[in-house]
Amino acid sequence: MDAAVTAAFDLRSWSAAHLDRVESALSRWVVAEAPAGLGDAMRYAVLDGGKRLRPLLVLAGAEAVGGNVQAALRAACAVELIHAYSLVHDDMPCMDNDVLRRGKPTVHVQFGQARALLAGDALQALAFELLAPDDEGIPAGVQARLVRLLARAAGHEGMAGGQAIDLASVGLALTEDQLRHMHRLKTGALLQGSVLMGAACGSADAQAQDALRRYGAAVGLAFQVVDDILDVIADSATLGKTAGKDAQQDKPTYVSLLGLDRSRAYAGELLAQALDALAASGLRDTRALDALARMVVDRDN
Amino acid sequence: MDAAVTAAFDLRSWSAAHLDRVESALSRWVVAEAPAGLGDAMRYAVLDGGKRLRPLLVLAGAEAVGGNVQAALRAACAVELIHAYSLVHDDMPCMDNDVLRRGKPTVHVQFGQARALLAGDALQALAFELLAPDDEGIPAGVQARLVRLLARAAGHEGMAGGQAIDLASVGLALTEDQLRHMHRLKTGALLQGSVLMGAACGSADAQAQDALRRYGAAVGLAFQVVDDILDVIADSATLGKTAGKDAQQDKPTYVSLLGLDRSRAYAGELLAQALDALAASGLRDTRALDALARMVVDRDN
Repeated sequence: MDAAVTAAFDLRSWSAAHLDRVESALSRWVVAEAPAGLGDAMRYAVLDGGKRLRPLLVLAGAEAVGGNVQAALRAACAVELIHAYSLVHDDMPCMDNDVLRRGKPTVHVQFGQARALLAGDALQALAFELLAPDDEGIPAGVQARLVRLLARAAGHEGMAGGQAIDLASVGLALTEDQLRHMHRLKTGALLQGSVLMGAACGSADAQAQDALRRYGAAVGLAFQVVDDILDVIADSATLGKTAGKDAQQDKPTYVSLLGLDRSRAYAGELLAQALDALAASGLRDTRALDALARMVVDRDN
Repeated sequence: MDAAVTAAFDLRSWSAAHLDRVESALSRWVVAEAPAGLGDAMRYAVLDGGKRLRPLLVLAGAEAVGGNVQAALRAACAVELIHAYSLVHDDMPCMDNDVLRRGKPTVHVQFGQARALLAGDALQALAFELLAPDDEGIPAGVQARLVRLLARAAGHEGMAGGQAIDLASVGLALTEDQLRHMHRLKTGALLQGSVLMGAACGSADAQAQDALRRYGAAVGLAFQVVDDILDVIADSATLGKTAGKDAQQDKPTYVSLLGLDRSRAYAGELLAQALDALAASGLRDTRALDALARMVVDRDN
């Protein structure tokens, strides 16, 4: 790593600067003018909330490869729209039936189920629309790569597939392999996809691609392990969503399978895997990716 | 038009040949292996049913411009997946609450609401995935254009926006302008988008693009006017879905606004607009587009 980039890295100020751009872009692209209250529901689902972990992973991945800045901003927002739509649908009565999200009533509570369903659908379409602009000089090859990565991460081989497994697993005793498979799809695919989309905004060689794939897989799984831990040890106010929900819904989790101590050890092991992958990437500046991996494991909400 | 292409055109055999390719591609791309029954629900929603009007419009549009055949097949299937997902979500209890579709129980009746919701979500993601393959030599510029057109047609400025207006319009007395605006988004955008996606598989000059846009707009609106007429005059067995549903749900329709005779006259007028646009397109072979427009207006289901 160059001397210039080994200076102490301040994730807080790095994130603040990048999130300013993300929030302002989301507010510009998710327009209130969408018909019949649809825009209001879409904005409610997306703006002013969430850790924005996925956009930060996109932007950190793009920085590591010196990627196209405008493409990375669009990719960051697109991933967040997919995440936001999945929460809207996941909270609906026919799915998790949750009424509290990010400390606010969920979208279907606020806008009704029909509008929540449509807002989620429209957010998914908008995510792909953002990736294929016709006026900003983003190379078509980059656009197509981003669409490919996002569609795979969001679809039946990724997030939606994982949700289907989750749904079918309530009340079942999964093995650790089955639990890992579910989470690799349900949460891991989109988190890993975020890193890879960032890298797709520039040019990463095969070694770097492979390293970022391993980094994304480890961070994605670590995120879920920590989520399972927090669901047990944190309260609803800190989480901004209903705590203790997993046990209440009889969902298999790392804590229920491994216990709290071994779950924490596993999260630490995944963090080590992520950092090892970065070290082997050959990329010049992976400080943001490094700091984000640590944050995922050390967070308290 | 060249002498070679003025020979009598047989829409039935043209459609049969093209639909064979579409059905086989859909069956290959919508895989049963998607986890936890998701693949079964997705296939149930897509295969063995429907007129496939949108795929045929894509393929006819592509033929008119001599477009990339593989891109056109992918675009045709992608549009159908968007249409299929919208039906799955639209039939759910929180939306239209319909139990019969294409003569079969709707997806949520067959697979449960949660899996229906996820199957719809996964179908939308798959639609975009189909447009951005990494191994078939479809130019990235074509891929990006197709994504842009489909995302706009499906999202808040298109289909999803129109559904939101539809939802908000139940029991209201719309003006003809308001009704037209709703249908231009709800059904028109995806039908028009189909034609434009076909054209995007090749190179159409500005004159042809504009003509196809006008053709698509006219056919899209005609489709809905005829739908409203059929909802009144046909029976459920012929339609393959519940007839008389609009009046029962107190939805504004062309028939309720204009009456049956003026609705029929309006459909004829829109057909004339569509055929005029083709005549002004400067395109060599618009026979399939011509025949499809006539079929949309003359159909009985």
